[in-house]
Amino acid sequence: MSDNFVTDTRWLLPDGVDEVLPPQAGALEALRRQVLGLYDSWGYDLVMPPTIEYLDALLTGVARDLDVQTFKLTDQVSGRLMGVRADMTPQAARIDAHQLRRDCPVRLCYTGTVLQTRPEGPATSRNPLQVGAELYGHTGIESDIEIIALMIETLRRADVSEPHLDLGHVGIFRGLAEQAQLDAATESRLWEALQRKAASEVDELLAEVDVAEPARHMLSSLALLSGGTEVLAEAASRLADADEPVRRALAELNAIADALRAWLPDVAIHFDLAELRGYQYHTGVVFAAFVPGYGEEIARGGRYDDIGRVFGRGRPATGFSCDLKTLFNRSEREITSPAAIAAPWQHDADLSRYVGELRQTGERVIWLLPGHEHELAAMGCDRRLVCRTDGWTIEAIEG
Amino acid sequence: MSDNFVTDTRWLLPDGVDEVLPPQAGALEALRRQVLGLYDSWGYDLVMPPTIEYLDALLTGVARDLDVQTFKLTDQVSGRLMGVRADMTPQAARIDAHQLRRDCPVRLCYTGTVLQTRPEGPATSRNPLQVGAELYGHTGIESDIEIIALMIETLRRADVSEPHLDLGHVGIFRGLAEQAQLDAATESRLWEALQRKAASEVDELLAEVDVAEPARHMLSSLALLSGGTEVLAEAASRLADADEPVRRALAELNAIADALRAWLPDVAIHFDLAELRGYQYHTGVVFAAFVPGYGEEIARGGRYDDIGRVFGRGRPATGFSCDLKTLFNRSEREITSPAAIAAPWQHDADLSRYVGELRQTGERVIWLLPGHEHELAAMGCDRRLVCRTDGWTIEAIEG
Repeated sequence: MSDNFVTDTRWLLPDGVDEVLPPQAGALEALRRQVLGLYDSWGYDLVMPPTIEYLDALLTGVARDLDVQTFKLTDQVSGRLMGVRADMTPQAARIDAHQLRRDCPVRLCYTGTVLQTRPEGPATSRNPLQVGAELYGHTGIESDIEIIALMIETLRRADVSEPHLDLGHVGIFRGLAEQAQLDAATESRLWEALQRKAASEVDELLAEVDVAEPARHMLSSLALLSGGTEVLAEAASRLADADEPVRRALAELNAIADALRAWLPDVAIHFDLAELRGYQYHTGVVFAAFVPGYGEEIARGGRYDDIGRVFGRGRPATGFSCDLKTLFNRSEREITSPAAIAAPWQHDADLSRYVGELRQTGERVIWLLPGHEHELAAMGCDRRLVCRTDGWTIEAIEG
Repeated sequence: MSDNFVTDTRWLLPDGVDEVLPPQAGALEALRRQVLGLYDSWGYDLVMPPTIEYLDALLTGVARDLDVQTFKLTDQVSGRLMGVRADMTPQAARIDAHQLRRDCPVRLCYTGTVLQTRPEGPATSRNPLQVGAELYGHTGIESDIEIIALMIETLRRADVSEPHLDLGHVGIFRGLAEQAQLDAATESRLWEALQRKAASEVDELLAEVDVAEPARHMLSSLALLSGGTEVLAEAASRLADADEPVRRALAELNAIADALRAWLPDVAIHFDLAELRGYQYHTGVVFAAFVPGYGEEIARGGRYDDIGRVFGRGRPATGFSCDLKTLFNRSEREITSPAAIAAPWQHDADLSRYVGELRQTGERVIWLLPGHEHELAAMGCDRRLVCRTDGWTIEAIEG
């Protein structure tokens, strides 16, 4: 073995792949428990879908983006192609539609590592710890409100400061694209330009494919419909000539905004009618949470009514998810290592019983292995067990 | 879309890949918390290594078995080969040697999904939820005792009935193979025959390569050295002519057995000097826990002092791991769905506050979405919130 192993870069992790060490890992685990406890208290049942599935089960009905983001593997048992999940939402939808098959509303939550072939943004991880909640079987805006409220509550539990909410509705762009009779390729190019808020590019594209008025004017105005509550009134006037699906989407967005002002009076809402994240699998309202000082969204979700159909059963669906590690990194918590009690290495029935009791009450007790009796501080011990005339007692360790 | 989606087998999971649904998933999560809480109380710090790493970081220093069991992926960012972890133990060793670099004993624990290209046995999963604990930086038998005691305590916390312990020591076979001057290929063939307890095959092989006495006789007797405490005395006599490393390994095994009888008086111990699980990365004592009615080991571990060297720093190491799902399946717990309180869907400040308080105290409260007011039982509600003259109260739901 060569001498340069210590600095050998083989041990560095791949770009965008991270791991969590002590004491952060313990604090992240505590956050995980809090968040899953929150979901449980709202009636969301935990599911644990597998990390790998057959590729067609993972990808049918979802966006092409997700296909590109998914690592592929060959199953040596069946010879079929498998994928490592890049998103757990379609897995939850499969479980609702195919495994549970209930008729009533079903609330599911999950957490687990997802892997992505490339980082989504410069600061994003390729191995996020996804956590999310999904509500199946209800069509009205009430389930969207519940999901958005739960997303905001998730951020609050994580001690993430003042989230604000971004609201959009994919039905608006999709309805206008239909009204303008755009072909799929043009719709996709237009969607991309809108994401970049490239207004002049949008106009050039609309001119190029010769879209008729009033659709042309309305599609062009989408990039401008971004801001506070005033955007909804402006949209009503600018999109007055839209077909019924667009007007229905706008009405839905208005109703959701009204309800959110009552349910979440402290949360600032920003509207963006050109923002269409996850557009290929969402079908209604889409939303994201942002926090000051972090350029990318910290949580996101939306309605995706159609996805269940390919799993055997069409069900209305709405949900959100986020990366628990991103939340953790934005959280304003203090992280400390747990303090421990040192116990001398000896087999003594009284000592063993006492150590067991202390551990049961939540204390951390470390056996002092022979030869390491003087490394108490390094191991985080601030107290030790000592045998006095009246039995074993805990004594502070003098610095 | 065709009509036969409902029965389409595309949605079946790959062989040996399983998922956990409600209410089992909630109960498994509770077990996960208990076990990680146990490790924390013993001073084991949680680490969260990534699901994927560069292949050479995952596999250097470990057994060829693990290579075969590891799914390979190409990193689109670097073009290098990555692997999906099939075992978290080498990751913990990398973290101790390369990331933490402490001099004192380091106790680490972890849990997460590992993936294996093929199931290890007919009843084993290809996506186990591995949980384990590792102790670095201590050479004596005391750290082995601590790890074995923690493994047994893990099974007890999981309500797994009467585990018994299998003990072996790879130093015995390895020392005899050296004494007999076996080449690597013969050693490997002999090892394989010993695993299968194929005594006649062992003898044929020893004759074929013309191993001299006394090594030949001693190697041949290994397959017989399996049973209760009497095995240790028998080994002392049968292996009396062994070189010093073998006698040292036997003495170590004796000392560990003595200590275990004091520390774990209730646990039956079985000795097997030919059992060499994980032989390619273990260096000392090896152990496994078995329970009645389950043919395969339910937890296993051992000493693996050399693995850290390839990560930059040689450290003594001992540890164990198991599949939390196997433990869960063998556990004698009753699993029940949580009972919930239904809350009517309305925005009322008093109601919202009350719902929030109930959830904080651990109650599960479900908003009744419009149109689903009559599906209380299906959603697991046994009580409901009702507004009476003196405010919101909880009332039982009559069957």
